[in-house]
Amino acid sequence: MSDIKKVVLAYSGGLDTSVIVRWLQETYQCEVVTFTADIGQGEEVEPARAKAAGLGVKEIYVDDLREEFVRDFVFPMFRANTVYEGEYLLGTSIARPLIAKRLIEIANETGADAISHGATGKGNDQVRFELGAYALKPGIKVIAPWREWDLNSREKLMAYCEEHNIPVDFSNKKKKSPYSMDANLLHISYEGGNLEDPWWEAEEDMWRWSVSPEAAPDQPTYIELTYEKGDIVAIDGQAMSPATVLAHLNKVGGENGIGRLDLVENRYVGMKSRGCYETPGGTIMLKAHRAIESLTLDREVAHLKDSLMPKYAEMVYNGYWWSPERKMMQTMIDESQEVVNGKVRVKLYKGNVIVAGRQSDDSLFDEKIATFEDDAGAYDQKDAEGFIKLNALRLRIAANKNRKLG
Amino acid sequence: MSDIKKVVLAYSGGLDTSVIVRWLQETYQCEVVTFTADIGQGEEVEPARAKAAGLGVKEIYVDDLREEFVRDFVFPMFRANTVYEGEYLLGTSIARPLIAKRLIEIANETGADAISHGATGKGNDQVRFELGAYALKPGIKVIAPWREWDLNSREKLMAYCEEHNIPVDFSNKKKKSPYSMDANLLHISYEGGNLEDPWWEAEEDMWRWSVSPEAAPDQPTYIELTYEKGDIVAIDGQAMSPATVLAHLNKVGGENGIGRLDLVENRYVGMKSRGCYETPGGTIMLKAHRAIESLTLDREVAHLKDSLMPKYAEMVYNGYWWSPERKMMQTMIDESQEVVNGKVRVKLYKGNVIVAGRQSDDSLFDEKIATFEDDAGAYDQKDAEGFIKLNALRLRIAANKNRKLG
Amino acid sequence: MSDIKKVVLAYSGGLDTSVIVRWLQETYQCEVVTFTADIGQGEEVEPARAKAAGLGVKEIYVDDLREEFVRDFVFPMFRANTVYEGEYLLGTSIARPLIAKRLIEIANETGADAISHGATGKGNDQVRFELGAYALKPGIKVIAPWREWDLNSREKLMAYCEEHNIPVDFSNKKKKSPYSMDANLLHISYEGGNLEDPWWEAEEDMWRWSVSPEAAPDQPTYIELTYEKGDIVAIDGQAMSPATVLAHLNKVGGENGIGRLDLVENRYVGMKSRGCYETPGGTIMLKAHRAIESLTLDREVAHLKDSLMPKYAEMVYNGYWWSPERKMMQTMIDESQEVVNGKVRVKLYKGNVIVAGRQSDDSLFDEKIATFEDDAGAYDQKDAEGFIKLNALRLRIAANKNRKLG
Amino acid sequence: MSDIKKVVLAYSGGLDTSVIVRWLQETYQCEVVTFTADIGQGEEVEPARAKAAGLGVKEIYVDDLREEFVRDFVFPMFRANTVYEGEYLLGTSIARPLIAKRLIEIANETGADAISHGATGKGNDQVRFELGAYALKPGIKVIAPWREWDLNSREKLMAYCEEHNIPVDFSNKKKKSPYSMDANLLHISYEGGNLEDPWWEAEEDMWRWSVSPEAAPDQPTYIELTYEKGDIVAIDGQAMSPATVLAHLNKVGGENGIGRLDLVENRYVGMKSRGCYETPGGTIMLKAHRAIESLTLDREVAHLKDSLMPKYAEMVYNGYWWSPERKMMQTMIDESQEVVNGKVRVKLYKGNVIVAGRQSDDSLFDEKIATFEDDAGAYDQKDAEGFIKLNALRLRIAANKNRKLG
Repeated sequence: MSDIKKVVLAYSGGLDTSVIVRWLQETYQCEVVTFTADIGQGEEVEPARAKAAGLGVKEIYVDDLREEFVRDFVFPMFRANTVYEGEYLLGTSIARPLIAKRLIEIANETGADAISHGATGKGNDQVRFELGAYALKPGIKVIAPWREWDLNSREKLMAYCEEHNIPVDFSNKKKKSPYSMDANLLHISYEGGNLEDPWWEAEEDMWRWSVSPEAAPDQPTYIELTYEKGDIVAIDGQAMSPATVLAHLNKVGGENGIGRLDLVENRYVGMKSRGCYETPGGTIMLKAHRAIESLTLDREVAHLKDSLMPKYAEMVYNGYWWSPERKMMQTMIDESQEVVNGKVRVKLYKGNVIVAGRQSDDSLFDEKIATFEDDAGAYDQKDAEGFIKLNALRLRIAANKNRKLG
Repeated sequence: MSDIKKVVLAYSGGLDTSVIVRWLQETYQCEVVTFTADIGQGEEVEPARAKAAGLGVKEIYVDDLREEFVRDFVFPMFRANTVYEGEYLLGTSIARPLIAKRLIEIANETGADAISHGATGKGNDQVRFELGAYALKPGIKVIAPWREWDLNSREKLMAYCEEHNIPVDFSNKKKKSPYSMDANLLHISYEGGNLEDPWWEAEEDMWRWSVSPEAAPDQPTYIELTYEKGDIVAIDGQAMSPATVLAHLNKVGGENGIGRLDLVENRYVGMKSRGCYETPGGTIMLKAHRAIESLTLDREVAHLKDSLMPKYAEMVYNGYWWSPERKMMQTMIDESQEVVNGKVRVKLYKGNVIVAGRQSDDSLFDEKIATFEDDAGAYDQKDAEGFIKLNALRLRIAANKNRKLG
Repeated sequence: MSDIKKVVLAYSGGLDTSVIVRWLQETYQCEVVTFTADIGQGEEVEPARAKAAGLGVKEIYVDDLREEFVRDFVFPMFRANTVYEGEYLLGTSIARPLIAKRLIEIANETGADAISHGATGKGNDQVRFELGAYALKPGIKVIAPWREWDLNSREKLMAYCEEHNIPVDFSNKKKKSPYSMDANLLHISYEGGNLEDPWWEAEEDMWRWSVSPEAAPDQPTYIELTYEKGDIVAIDGQAMSPATVLAHLNKVGGENGIGRLDLVENRYVGMKSRGCYETPGGTIMLKAHRAIESLTLDREVAHLKDSLMPKYAEMVYNGYWWSPERKMMQTMIDESQEVVNGKVRVKLYKGNVIVAGRQSDDSLFDEKIATFEDDAGAYDQKDAEGFIKLNALRLRIAANKNRKLG
Repeated sequence: MSDIKKVVLAYSGGLDTSVIVRWLQETYQCEVVTFTADIGQGEEVEPARAKAAGLGVKEIYVDDLREEFVRDFVFPMFRANTVYEGEYLLGTSIARPLIAKRLIEIANETGADAISHGATGKGNDQVRFELGAYALKPGIKVIAPWREWDLNSREKLMAYCEEHNIPVDFSNKKKKSPYSMDANLLHISYEGGNLEDPWWEAEEDMWRWSVSPEAAPDQPTYIELTYEKGDIVAIDGQAMSPATVLAHLNKVGGENGIGRLDLVENRYVGMKSRGCYETPGGTIMLKAHRAIESLTLDREVAHLKDSLMPKYAEMVYNGYWWSPERKMMQTMIDESQEVVNGKVRVKLYKGNVIVAGRQSDDSLFDEKIATFEDDAGAYDQKDAEGFIKLNALRLRIAANKNRKLG
């Protein structure tokens, strides 16, 4: 263990990662560099600086990564209409590759030979952090304390704090929750506690980012989203940066009871787990992006995207953001988005996201052809007969051979 | 044209298909057999008998196909979590192969050499009817009046009626709608009229099967669905037949404002079209089926199903229900459903379908492994290191070769 | 029919298309522009100029498209290792979009309002020509004489020639073949005649581009192919243009009995057909390209390419080269080829293409890790245990639930 | 380590696994049960009995599994036309799940609590053995000596033998090869040694199962294969059991220089490796199976199979034979094979497998439709126009919007 000289730790400022700072210092006799990021989790990150300093850390990084997070990770993922297992919008998954990237950048800057994180050995996050780190710096060493130490209960952690003079006012309101939570600008998640029984319904006061549909206003809210190349660039006509877009959608979405999800999902490490998620802005974005694509994408492009989406979602969920296959698929997805421009009008009401209109200069919707009225010869209905007959030919040949379809 | 002796017509009893009866008699000098089916469209089918008789039809079929429709078409499709283009539950598409099958059965019984239908030459339904017919009886002839005649406006139709003594009291309340509508036990659809402008929001009084979320009760409704092999067999503990299940879900769903959809979709014949749909029961079924699968399906089985679903949806949408590829895929889907047994508790509230609990004797959710608490050695966290390292190996080798991922 | 003023015809200079020139002139009373392309079919194209002039054609195009054909069509397709139905290298399919493109370019240059071609109404080529033409110039008109006229036998064609003073010395050696043939730099194909019986073995003197394996030299030929970004840029160290590469490979391949294929394939128009193909160079290229990719591509990239290849092949076969979905997929394929650089040594012997070696500066093959010998710690075998255990976890949980796999 | 009481070892009778017997006895102080299978590797298995007895083993299993191997593993895999990474016929991979199954059966019979094998920690075989074992008996323990001990060189192994009185006449002719080899009725493989340089061409005397194409007879051999439901049931009219079929094809294939392959492949554990394979019978089977399918399978069924094949191949290669996803996919594949009946005539000549004819009572090849001659109205060429026009519609609409395809 003695060959590690400096380690960069993803540091939240909370109790667990504070214990990790001290544990790394003691166990590895190495220097610890802390890295704390604002990715929109909704808590101040600056206090982490003093806490780290108090633990003897000399190199302290506190970064605001919100714009990079949304621009380079969230938006590209939503271009693919990405949903894992039919429902999950990948709020936790998509933040991990950014953290991994920044850990490695800081390792390079500070000459560290290892990184460390506070994810447990049962979850997906360890995989996402570490695959990213290895992909970006193949010689990096990784220390995952939860897989190594024996401080696997709150009691042992507290005892360790006392023993090592770690101030326990690290605890905060959030930590009093009975749930394990994770938040960033895209979502907040809840796991553990009573949720471990999938028949148990989550209680109302668990949720933090949204009101319940019941408590939402009785009047709907309409918003208009402007798309350029598949990304939202303005809301109600006002240009906004990516992070501002998402923050705004979270606000109006949360106020209208939008984006709650209660799910049993399959983890990459092989088990099923129950999670609850609030993704107000993301829920609006998915619906609206499909709406603008419905006007602007060619049918076969749209279907090809749909058929590949589950694979793309798997890549993101499993931690392969930093992989050549994700890069290759992103190239294709991004190519498809050149024409995804226009406006979507959305009605938000008590948990519902309802598309109220879509328009685009790049629309392929051709009223002259689709109309039930006289189309002035734009479409020759007689063509349909040949179309059907040739498409039926193989079926007829088979039927003539008495092939059964029943 | 003289070589057609008898034609079976899919007859609704409405104005259009009544005109078709007469037009077929006159144009082809052939006998017409009418076939009217109750597939849950919500209108009496018996009156069609007298109307057909009044038009001189001698062989008249009026069938109640509701149970067959749900059991053999709707339920198998929902086993695949089928959604076309991310949103459409295929309510119209799935009814067509049943009609096609029955038309052919009747053609066989009556010795008819042709079938006919009232679908236009611009839509998907002509394709679905005719592909099914050709697949089931390859030598059948198909007459699609809308592709042949020149009665392509309401005025011309009315003139034809007058000229040919067709009583115009065929018109009914439904026909006064400015929209083209289609209904069956799975959904009702609206097309045409103002909907041809995709920026235009559907007005409240267009919708017929559901109240608006705004008008739905302020108290949620909870229901419990029992699954066997992927199909719902009981609601709130009461065993029900397939059609009864769907009718019940439509009722509670519609009362709670559930299942409205406003969509621009890509037709198989090559154009985009705007449609609005109400699918109250289907919307509940999709959500609940995913919930019971989330407990009972293996991860890779679930992912394989998800990756093939868009292809399956395309088959149904495009009219290839009666095809060897759909049959082959159905075999696989059905095989996966052997273990999809258990209960789902669902909360319905103002347009929202919220999973409130799921349980199953076939559950693969293992609380002992997934727990955040002490798992008594059920899972060795140290295994994760090797798992990650080998999964990272190819990425590290590539990074050592300076491959770029950015 | 009178509204067509000028039509561009894909003109081979042979009997059939010469009849078409005259038929178009007479039937449509329009001007005919002929376009004859050298795409490596192995026959002089210049004679077509005089023949066209003799038929009264004033605007005559004779183009050498060999380099464009290989560079922009054949090479991009081989980057995907494209094979239709497991065996067919798409030699005919890939030439059609180039012809379609050039027809439209000439239509634009000459102000023509229509194009025409000599493909029959039963085959795939009509589809490929016309889909390409419509995609590139949506308002173009298409005249397909074989679908319109009644000259559907050689006798009727000859009678038409006599009647219209078309010189019948158009016939050439090739036309005496009992087979319908098509050739370009990628392949030559044979259809019809005795081949319509799939149990009948093609006789030796049908084949024109290759000797039989039996007749090939008793000594093998070795060649070395240099790849840059997935394309061959040099043979045996000598830089060559794309068309020169393919011509050279055809020569050495054909001399060594390589590239014959006898196939029953599924046409897009719905029937099965029997075809024989000689693709000497292409057969070498497919094998060699896989070899250089085997060293340089990441595993998941390679597998993703493999899983999408059948879809890509379908697009090419069915005539959707000029489509947004092919373009989108090409973008992804091309992205993957940035690293496909290096050399492949191939042994050619009596019909066999055998990879004798491959090397690359971009190789991901790491002898230090793969070795059976001591790897000096490059790979920790103990990692495999965790890897296997977590991959097995879901299987074990299911087995504990008594799920059957037998 | 003391809690293991009895372990079933996959025992070849060779030096390595004999060392493992002793090492297990000493290290785990447990009883060892040996299991030796004849899966067609071409060596006597009976001698293993005496060798095991000589090492003090009391429960000795020697099984002839050849028929089960071909019937339940090889044949089902070939129904899918399975090829890994475009070339590898999975000869090693497909034998492992059978060994795993038998190890578990014996563990159940003998009350053993563990299994063991002689696969190294770098390869795929450990994964295949262990995934299978865990899937079939989730509580089983696995001992993989190569991942545990330090006998990682021939010298150390020999020293261990001397020290522990293991007779070293275990060595046999095969072991003198510089290559690591593995054989069963489907193939023999070579790895290691000079093959670790991918530029190095395998020398002629490495190959054991086939003559070189150069050394094969100058006269071709014709054989006729009879298929029932996708499997070969007779050769040249003579009914044969599955193992007899494969043995026969290996013989004639090997005599004609068929089935050699030299490949760089991607292992599941993350590295590339170079392997050489001889699969004479399998190479014939793949070609012939595609030929009989080309006549009998519907186009869309065939394409669906092709699109899923890479995924299926991955499952087999990675060791997931005993998984619900493989079972599910097999159900679909098998369903497609009901109609794959008939005969294929194949010409074997100096490395070439050439289809010389195929016929089937279930043929969908319809000469009346496909013919270039007069088809008596079986196909209406005019239908093609409508077919093309509707397929082109979306492309034309996009072109009208000035979408670029170049």
